[in-house]
Amino acid sequence: MNSTDRSGDVARRSVYLDHAATSRPKPPAVAAAMDRYMREVCASPGRGGYALSLDAGRIVFRARAALKQLFNAASEESVVFTLNVTHALNIAMHGLIRPGDRVVTTSVEHNSVIRPLRQLQADHGLELTIVQCDRHGMLDPSDMARAVQPGTRAVVMTHASNVLGSILPIAEVGRIAHEAGAFFIVDTAQTAGVLDIDFNEVGADVLAFTGHKSLMGPPGTGGFVVGAEAAKQMRPLFSGGTGSRSHLETQPEELPDRFEAGTMNTVGIAGLAAGVEFIAGVGMERVRRHELELAATFIEGAQAIDGVEVYGPGAREARVPTVSVGLAGRDLAQMAYALDAEHGVMVRPGLHCSPLAHRTAGTFPEGTLRFSFGCFNTREEVDYALSALATVAMSAGE
Amino acid sequence: MNSTDRSGDVARRSVYLDHAATSRPKPPAVAAAMDRYMREVCASPGRGGYALSLDAGRIVFRARAALKQLFNAASEESVVFTLNVTHALNIAMHGLIRPGDRVVTTSVEHNSVIRPLRQLQADHGLELTIVQCDRHGMLDPSDMARAVQPGTRAVVMTHASNVLGSILPIAEVGRIAHEAGAFFIVDTAQTAGVLDIDFNEVGADVLAFTGHKSLMGPPGTGGFVVGAEAAKQMRPLFSGGTGSRSHLETQPEELPDRFEAGTMNTVGIAGLAAGVEFIAGVGMERVRRHELELAATFIEGAQAIDGVEVYGPGAREARVPTVSVGLAGRDLAQMAYALDAEHGVMVRPGLHCSPLAHRTAGTFPEGTLRFSFGCFNTREEVDYALSALATVAMSAGE
Repeated sequence: MNSTDRSGDVARRSVYLDHAATSRPKPPAVAAAMDRYMREVCASPGRGGYALSLDAGRIVFRARAALKQLFNAASEESVVFTLNVTHALNIAMHGLIRPGDRVVTTSVEHNSVIRPLRQLQADHGLELTIVQCDRHGMLDPSDMARAVQPGTRAVVMTHASNVLGSILPIAEVGRIAHEAGAFFIVDTAQTAGVLDIDFNEVGADVLAFTGHKSLMGPPGTGGFVVGAEAAKQMRPLFSGGTGSRSHLETQPEELPDRFEAGTMNTVGIAGLAAGVEFIAGVGMERVRRHELELAATFIEGAQAIDGVEVYGPGAREARVPTVSVGLAGRDLAQMAYALDAEHGVMVRPGLHCSPLAHRTAGTFPEGTLRFSFGCFNTREEVDYALSALATVAMSAGE
Repeated sequence: MNSTDRSGDVARRSVYLDHAATSRPKPPAVAAAMDRYMREVCASPGRGGYALSLDAGRIVFRARAALKQLFNAASEESVVFTLNVTHALNIAMHGLIRPGDRVVTTSVEHNSVIRPLRQLQADHGLELTIVQCDRHGMLDPSDMARAVQPGTRAVVMTHASNVLGSILPIAEVGRIAHEAGAFFIVDTAQTAGVLDIDFNEVGADVLAFTGHKSLMGPPGTGGFVVGAEAAKQMRPLFSGGTGSRSHLETQPEELPDRFEAGTMNTVGIAGLAAGVEFIAGVGMERVRRHELELAATFIEGAQAIDGVEVYGPGAREARVPTVSVGLAGRDLAQMAYALDAEHGVMVRPGLHCSPLAHRTAGTFPEGTLRFSFGCFNTREEVDYALSALATVAMSAGE
């Protein structure tokens, strides 16, 4: 399984720069918490009459408490766990948006937002407005203010582009949404654990998060924080056993049970708690400064490479540490392969599940090469990746 | 985290008999596979341009292959992963059942079946027939044959009662469903890894499974096997990024992507593969014989305890190793607490997320104490549990 085994050259460099897909490595405490869970607990939380079941429940509660604190949520119970942020977004959109509703979104959304909206549109004749961002992925709040009208049911948008690294003004949009009486659903897949996000200051009704990116948890974790009014109006997308009010043949109304049916990913949630606690311990601002310095160094270096174009906000502008680059006329999948096979530099080519963002940037359908930086990356790795990119850019041009 | 630490008496017995909730312990290979995944792989499968991403994809494929073989599915791609069996059942029911449809189910279903059906009924005026099982949880196929009519859209049922341990005749019901042109959705939460289940012989259209019970995987895993016609007609409940056909703003049609949106629980799936391979290696029949012998011993012993009533099929009848007992007039939650606190015997009291089954058995609303046996339990543990039950039954009566 170790990628360095295959080449026979165990000394080969290995520089992982796909943190926008998933962070890697995780802090050792994450795997340790999961291993401990598997070996020592491994019971269903709160569904047995025995202490071990309560232990499992306490681990889940601890994760809710860590996330409550991170997002300044109203209560532990308002933190709902799902398989991933995509499910969280689906639950919010399917739960709140009714046939014929007006919904507003942006032109840099991930397929986790636009695909459910297109499905709702096909099924129910949803009236969908996509507010155009500029080619760097920046949203002008006044464009949003023009699109959101009294009667708009929901504004659904990402906090940062997973392609361009641009940060969108969610607090301003939150105010615009609420003035119009619209629900505000925010996708923090690229920002939770990177930027400070206060649920109330943002004016979010549903704040969807992923566990396995900058919160440093394992895959299989994510969820959402939900406000009281949204929770009341959101119809659960699925239902089933909750270990609560078992006499009822209908889903309980209480949070979080209303949106959590079936056995949870308790082992993943144990890891997520360790990940969130790691970020809180190191300090999010310290992590952010480090990652943004790496991204800035990379952008400046990449811009100096002949033929390389860098998309999104500039090196020293407000952004997240995700950087897309292009090389006119080159096969980017081939370049990504060469970066890995010849240099051990792992990046992601293509459309990054966001055709919208690439249309916005003018990079559709060929896409870009995406370099995204994590808290364990070093300045030296960035320099190495730049020299690898320069080499591959040159050889691809021959 | 270790439950034995709390009492200060580390020599206290610890006998886990709640395998119908989740199996425990897992084979060491499961935690080992997960730990290896977290430390060595931890990339998003198939979404990067680098070898490590392919490694992650191979691990997921290996799990699909193990489950394809287990259920004799048509292809690896027909094995879809979800957070748990409840999600699998919801995806199948919401995907196939249309407003006004006629649906047939049984009187021993878990809330994972009845709650979604009640929700569909409330939303769409579903016409729902619940076929009555006898008080042991046995279903007479001729009762099902009378309920299923031409025009019935779907039959949804469990393979075995999670309360009574009764096995339901799914192959006969599969034939009845198909003769009537109905889809057949089977919940194997209590049987996958215990009984031989051949997807085609059963005549299933959707076979939902859980990973963390008798397949010995971790919580956070489960899924379904889907037939070609059902896959075509099932509308996806979730949509989002799939890492495939990223240029499309709509969900891809191909299996398994059609039903798998967002980042998967790859680390859990790595553990599930190890669990399924463990069961295949030991041999399901050997495991089953062992567990059923334990259950039979327990039933015979429990029947000999004054005041204890055993529900479900008899000790030597066809059943799964899940046994419900009752004590007239006793507080069962209090008894479960005493079994754990005083004897270290972990069982689950109450309604087990199945009010239907308890109404069928005549044990609603007080429920039962459920003892369920796993492959690592021993005859000695069963004897110990029986003596603990006898002690608690006596003292509760004082």
